[in-house]
Amino acid sequence: MPNIAIAYASGRGHTRKLAEEIATTLGAEGCAARLIEVEVMFKKDWDALMEADAILFGAPTYMGSAAAAFKHFMDETGDIWVRQAWVDKLAGGFTVATFPGGDKLSTLMQLTVFAAQHGMVWVGQDQIGAPANKANEGINQSGAWLGLAATSVRDKIQLVSEGDLETARRFAARMARAAKRWA
Amino acid sequence: MPNIAIAYASGRGHTRKLAEEIATTLGAEGCAARLIEVEVMFKKDWDALMEADAILFGAPTYMGSAAAAFKHFMDETGDIWVRQAWVDKLAGGFTVATFPGGDKLSTLMQLTVFAAQHGMVWVGQDQIGAPANKANEGINQSGAWLGLAATSVRDKIQLVSEGDLETARRFAARMARAAKRWA
Amino acid sequence: MPNIAIAYASGRGHTRKLAEEIATTLGAEGCAARLIEVEVMFKKDWDALMEADAILFGAPTYMGSAAAAFKHFMDETGDIWVRQAWVDKLAGGFTVATFPGGDKLSTLMQLTVFAAQHGMVWVGQDQIGAPANKANEGINQSGAWLGLAATSVRDKIQLVSEGDLETARRFAARMARAAKRWA
Amino acid sequence: MPNIAIAYASGRGHTRKLAEEIATTLGAEGCAARLIEVEVMFKKDWDALMEADAILFGAPTYMGSAAAAFKHFMDETGDIWVRQAWVDKLAGGFTVATFPGGDKLSTLMQLTVFAAQHGMVWVGQDQIGAPANKANEGINQSGAWLGLAATSVRDKIQLVSEGDLETARRFAARMARAAKRWA
Repeated sequence: MPNIAIAYASGRGHTRKLAEEIATTLGAEGCAARLIEVEVMFKKDWDALMEADAILFGAPTYMGSAAAAFKHFMDETGDIWVRQAWVDKLAGGFTVATFPGGDKLSTLMQLTVFAAQHGMVWVGQDQIGAPANKANEGINQSGAWLGLAATSVRDKIQLVSEGDLETARRFAARMARAAKRWA
Repeated sequence: MPNIAIAYASGRGHTRKLAEEIATTLGAEGCAARLIEVEVMFKKDWDALMEADAILFGAPTYMGSAAAAFKHFMDETGDIWVRQAWVDKLAGGFTVATFPGGDKLSTLMQLTVFAAQHGMVWVGQDQIGAPANKANEGINQSGAWLGLAATSVRDKIQLVSEGDLETARRFAARMARAAKRWA
Repeated sequence: MPNIAIAYASGRGHTRKLAEEIATTLGAEGCAARLIEVEVMFKKDWDALMEADAILFGAPTYMGSAAAAFKHFMDETGDIWVRQAWVDKLAGGFTVATFPGGDKLSTLMQLTVFAAQHGMVWVGQDQIGAPANKANEGINQSGAWLGLAATSVRDKIQLVSEGDLETARRFAARMARAAKRWA
Repeated sequence: MPNIAIAYASGRGHTRKLAEEIATTLGAEGCAARLIEVEVMFKKDWDALMEADAILFGAPTYMGSAAAAFKHFMDETGDIWVRQAWVDKLAGGFTVATFPGGDKLSTLMQLTVFAAQHGMVWVGQDQIGAPANKANEGINQSGAWLGLAATSVRDKIQLVSEGDLETARRFAARMARAAKRWA
């Protein structure tokens, strides 16, 4: 059973909602999923990341890149980088912003470059949205492939649209398949 | 009167529509605007670029970056780069894709890096869309700031939405103001 | 035995040299390697890409992004994208420029976004160079992790440095390991 | 006399050294330069940024993007963004990393996207290094144009090379010229 860790920071709950949806799907797909909110990291959290077969990185896009709380976590991994201790783990990324484009690609690129420095192998989207595939109404609505890119909605209970949640489930299912294949 | 050249490539007309809208607004704002379709360049077109105070670069986003026809033009500027003959001109960029995100930011970054190699000064968007500014319904709907990012619509006469056209007009008006100030 | 295709464009031979070095190492590591120069593509080349377990994309960095000849090839894959026919293949990228930085990261990002659109899984570098690992004198000298980034040398026979060639070999060996594991 | 603020974060002194060199040159070129270390910001610092004609952003590249301390500052500008209170200011960026490439372009892109969100006008490099211009030995050695990209040296007094310092001076002189022209 592959271990998949989800390391994320969340400002007003949107990114957490995606993280939880991903974790639920990973569990249903036969993976051990572990949610780690990076603002407060304990030794057991760092150990969990070290043991994971795959790590998903999630952060809201603030001012065009990953929120500072998440960048703090990224910078903390410098020693892991020197030892290349995460090499050959799978990686993926997700982000949320207020706009459909919203410079979310900038955050996904930042996460991709970060994972590449760690020698990780990057798994993105495999879903094309409705403009190119009519069966996919609501799926990958923003149009991003490097990772999962959701748009925040104003409803404080819903937080992200049903289409974005379904996109998150498919993204998680793909990660589960990839982790089993890579094992 | 500032000279502003618009160097663009267009596949199915969407980018041309934006280019023409920008040219019309530039004219109304007291600039001499010149449209240059880069697929076929004559000496007089290269001369026009050399004489321009500002150059706007426009290309559709195909497979995540500027269309090959436009990249061909970019590569042709290598000698200009060695002489830094475009240094201190203003620059800006615009792109169109099928999706609201659609990796258009990747194209805008590519154009920004290109203009920076030429020593040009980059002018982007100054419009925030409706999620953050209710008066701006339809404006900068994708949510991009590095440049103008439109989404193609299926209506073959309209090609891009009225909101995207109005965003193009405001983008052009900003360029006109910047070119006068920089003169 | 994994099939690995190397699709590349070369201007003055530097990128070809890297492509050939990669192909040689892939062969030595038990992979069937196929070199495809993308300027002239036949049906058998497109078939080879379709049958490949992994595709490496190589292009010189011209004016801050992949050379136009390579972008032409990228744009030609639009139909493959709509069918997501390359989904779950492994991918990697390499580039050459005149400068150690030289905006090569821009090209590698462009290739990463391209492969992500195709639903491919991205494999980068796993080598840290000498400033952080003294045993690695000459390896990954530019300092890039998203892919292989070489610097052209003026010697027209050597074309790229011995350190960059050794980096290419290690990059190829990593691809071979990844392709076997992913099989 | 143009006001130019230099907002920076520094880890082990390399970025501070560049910031100070830039400030000295700006002063010599007839600008009022103000250094602001962003880790501790007072109201007077925010006021200085608001009054500045141009703001230079400086941060070390850690794990492939601007150091967390600088990202914290970036996120703090959200209210300024909503009001577009920095619109039409000039902007520029600088960064340092251990490697000549070192994913510094990723940081410079991040800063460019950030400044574009604020509606600022981006001024990069106008110096081509020695591989393309023999008179420029040591200048822009990394090969970056979106901004100033230095490489840290191990000497704890020197911190950055003389070539990178001279590149910083030319970058500052360009900013001074641009600020006067834009005034």
